[in-house]
Amino acid sequence: MNIQLALDRLSINEAVKITEEVRPYVNWIEVGTSLIKEFGMESVRTLRKSFPEKVIIADMKTFDNAQYEFQMCYDAGADVATVMGAAPIVSIETCMNIAEKSGKLLMIDLLNTSKDKLAKLAKYESAIFCLHVSKDMQELEGTKQNSKINIPDELRNVKNLKLAIAGGITIDSLKDLVIDNPHVVIIGSAITKAKNPREVAKIANDLVNSVKGGD
Amino acid sequence: MNIQLALDRLSINEAVKITEEVRPYVNWIEVGTSLIKEFGMESVRTLRKSFPEKVIIADMKTFDNAQYEFQMCYDAGADVATVMGAAPIVSIETCMNIAEKSGKLLMIDLLNTSKDKLAKLAKYESAIFCLHVSKDMQELEGTKQNSKINIPDELRNVKNLKLAIAGGITIDSLKDLVIDNPHVVIIGSAITKAKNPREVAKIANDLVNSVKGGD
Repeated sequence: MNIQLALDRLSINEAVKITEEVRPYVNWIEVGTSLIKEFGMESVRTLRKSFPEKVIIADMKTFDNAQYEFQMCYDAGADVATVMGAAPIVSIETCMNIAEKSGKLLMIDLLNTSKDKLAKLAKYESAIFCLHVSKDMQELEGTKQNSKINIPDELRNVKNLKLAIAGGITIDSLKDLVIDNPHVVIIGSAITKAKNPREVAKIANDLVNSVKGGD
Repeated sequence: MNIQLALDRLSINEAVKITEEVRPYVNWIEVGTSLIKEFGMESVRTLRKSFPEKVIIADMKTFDNAQYEFQMCYDAGADVATVMGAAPIVSIETCMNIAEKSGKLLMIDLLNTSKDKLAKLAKYESAIFCLHVSKDMQELEGTKQNSKINIPDELRNVKNLKLAIAGGITIDSLKDLVIDNPHVVIIGSAITKAKNPREVAKIANDLVNSVKGGD
């Protein structure tokens, strides 16, 4: 199980500073969509350079122009890039191909993805599937991530299914989530907005290690 | 009818240079998603500053974090910002509210938006609805924009419906499209990759003016 630290609504300097603080306790570092749209690939390059030992995720949320966008962020140093499950299948297919050709990883963000589409995505066995309750759904609708992971029926037969869980995860909800041992738990503001990010990250790391070490 | 020049897969300098060349013949300038993800808001700020008399569109393709992303690009000088029709309705609603509060415009990109969702979007009467054949669908699937505009049934009753048409529009297809007099025709590579962008933009502008002047 891996802890992915999601860096959003921050300057690049703030993002580096917080990551530095929690460095021993997180192994995947996500350059959030807000950083990418505000600062461009400079955000990915800086996090890559500052944390060479970490897995760097570029939360591109690609919906079109797949080859150009994925090449851009892999070239900037990302190990993983995200595409929206709601995007046209031709774009997702292209992302998958570039990821495989580059020896990198693809994460498919399943936010607002239909069941029909999920069934079509099940063939991408090397992808990481991200069950995602969005920021706006959390903050404006009050929707919460389930504390128990609900694997969509359409994905149940994926060989070695790799799940990521995202959206408002706190130390409290993490206690339940770790039991299901997902591949990645994505934690953002619970760490980045904490009074003491290092302390929260350490508790999260202890919880994850109590079940299974990161890989 | 307005011509929106879509600037994609270019450096900021190249984007400014091309826009300078075609300046008299286009009235809306789109900072493409690829520029935003590569260079961040600097791309929007530079185009804003360089072309104060134009309508500037930030093709944010927002899918979440609506308030933060829209405030960011409006603050950078955009007059119009885009949200995906496939995004959660709470995010689209937030974009609509911020646009209205800021006295700015919202464009809803209908790429891969379901019919059920279209029906829910029809209430946003002040939005511009963009019928969009994506780059990947054009380049990898060979899908072409219809030369006749097919207004989705779900949007037919929108009062003063404002349509934008995007995706592989050429001078040839523009000849047919202008007959339907959409609010915006979005032209990218037909101008930006032309041997003589100014000449192509002038022909496009003549075509648009032969039907109705820009507004």
